[in-house]
Amino acid sequence: MSVTIKDVARYCEVSTATVSRVINNDPRISEKTKEKVMKGIKELNYRINGVARSLKTNRTRTIGFICPEIPNDFFMSIAKGVEDELKKYGYSVIICNSNENTEEEKERIKLLCEKCVDGIIIIPATDEGRHFKYLKDANMPVVLVDRLVEDFQSDAVLVDNINGSYCAVEYLINKGYNRIGFIGGDVKLTSAKERFEGYTRALNDYCIPLEKDIIKFGDFHIKGGFDLMKEMMQQDNPPPLVFISNYFMHVGAVKYLIENKYKLDKEVLIASFDDMELSSIFGFSVLRVRQPMMEIGSKAAQLLLSRIDGDKTAYPRIVRLKTELITEW
Amino acid sequence: MSVTIKDVARYCEVSTATVSRVINNDPRISEKTKEKVMKGIKELNYRINGVARSLKTNRTRTIGFICPEIPNDFFMSIAKGVEDELKKYGYSVIICNSNENTEEEKERIKLLCEKCVDGIIIIPATDEGRHFKYLKDANMPVVLVDRLVEDFQSDAVLVDNINGSYCAVEYLINKGYNRIGFIGGDVKLTSAKERFEGYTRALNDYCIPLEKDIIKFGDFHIKGGFDLMKEMMQQDNPPPLVFISNYFMHVGAVKYLIENKYKLDKEVLIASFDDMELSSIFGFSVLRVRQPMMEIGSKAAQLLLSRIDGDKTAYPRIVRLKTELITEW
Repeated sequence: MSVTIKDVARYCEVSTATVSRVINNDPRISEKTKEKVMKGIKELNYRINGVARSLKTNRTRTIGFICPEIPNDFFMSIAKGVEDELKKYGYSVIICNSNENTEEEKERIKLLCEKCVDGIIIIPATDEGRHFKYLKDANMPVVLVDRLVEDFQSDAVLVDNINGSYCAVEYLINKGYNRIGFIGGDVKLTSAKERFEGYTRALNDYCIPLEKDIIKFGDFHIKGGFDLMKEMMQQDNPPPLVFISNYFMHVGAVKYLIENKYKLDKEVLIASFDDMELSSIFGFSVLRVRQPMMEIGSKAAQLLLSRIDGDKTAYPRIVRLKTELITEW
Repeated sequence: MSVTIKDVARYCEVSTATVSRVINNDPRISEKTKEKVMKGIKELNYRINGVARSLKTNRTRTIGFICPEIPNDFFMSIAKGVEDELKKYGYSVIICNSNENTEEEKERIKLLCEKCVDGIIIIPATDEGRHFKYLKDANMPVVLVDRLVEDFQSDAVLVDNINGSYCAVEYLINKGYNRIGFIGGDVKLTSAKERFEGYTRALNDYCIPLEKDIIKFGDFHIKGGFDLMKEMMQQDNPPPLVFISNYFMHVGAVKYLIENKYKLDKEVLIASFDDMELSSIFGFSVLRVRQPMMEIGSKAAQLLLSRIDGDKTAYPRIVRLKTELITEW
């Protein structure tokens, strides 16, 4: 009972080839014919089969976004930036979760390639990039965001992590702090490594020796922040101020302080990478390094669209966005 | 240069029909042949074209998840519940954003139907469900989550909102409060309406008159919570305790209190629907109604899978999950 392309052609009094050209946005079709056919398609309620269509055209006007975690406002704000930019060009986004796992990331890449998206934006799960080869083989335009991976050259949008944490730590030093604790992510991630580098460079430049006891590494999660803050505060001589290298560790650290009845803005202060909507209402926080999440997303979308449109500029094109210091002092 | 199904057939010394049957999981193929062909596919690095394949088989083992907002931990935690459950059955999830907009929701539904997912889980953007007809026409299995829509019968996973807020308000009354402010969402959404109903029922059952001045409605967003808390506190005789009907309004309300230097746990207390990871670290909060987000997601996945597997039970099947009271008193 379903309406076919022949029914549409008969109804509009054109050939099936014409209907097909309209569906595939062929420029040889006049606006008038296009209108007539679109009207017929609508009136007959003809459903264009996207799968059949994408076998014939090369564009699906859909792009994939793969990130390591979905209940994560940082990643999802970037996804929103991607989506808002793509919408201007009539593109849609589908989001997949790699669960911080290389195997799942590989599966998601395959899934999206099979679903024939026009390009993929990836926030890598780890620094491991061997399975990204699949993208090259499939000739799939790709942009990395937030982190790089080994052995894979690609366009990427990153943040100037080193300078972001350098400026924050420098600001704290100028405020008179010379014992600044550090809570960082897994240095296998380029972003975690760079933020630590900014911290050490600032201390070096101001001739402040690194104190091993107040430098701690975990992962970028709430629990990591909680556990490391606990270690930090339970030692004999805890620092009066701790620099925490992402939002989720910041949340975990605050959680520890609140559960252990630390008093707001007195016993310990927090500076941190990331400035999310909730950061300012936690208490303890005096300084934050804001990443331009929406802009990261829109830049990534722009890079991807240019590749989809055939831009052959040599790889990699790297965009480094600046951070901004937010202070409540 | 790309490897075709013929190359695989020649390499494995079988017919192309056999290769095709292996790819499509045809039960007529022996395990031995299957193994041989899969080995050939791997060794030749033959890429199965998902688009071409999904024209032939009926399953893509992918389901779609459409929700009204993506940087939203509540929706994304449900998505995670969906994904964890589906993963057990070898299914993947792709997530799309409807942006709380009926038109975009319709576009996303079409997109997913075109991408040939096996089923769709939707957290509706509004109460408007006319465009859901598309799903019925496409014979697409669908499960609604969190909210219902008008004029569309479907399986659904909801939370017992009425009882959740009834129990919370009852608890507060028993603690001696008889002036309990209310900040609610748009009552066009079933969830917002039901939470208000629980509030009024509890007050009625305990013979406490409704005070119009301390009952406010907005949307379920941070800004709504901020603005309504401001209105609430700026009136002559603000209530000592406010019941807020979702997480984001709770965040907005706390933001208002902190920016205006309200003292923690003294001048005003907050009870609220939802208990997210951060709820307990905001201060002001004394009681929360926890929704089982992961379970909502896994139930929705189960209902959907059963429909995909051909379950013909009469529509609608509604699952109402219970909430849990979390108190810090």
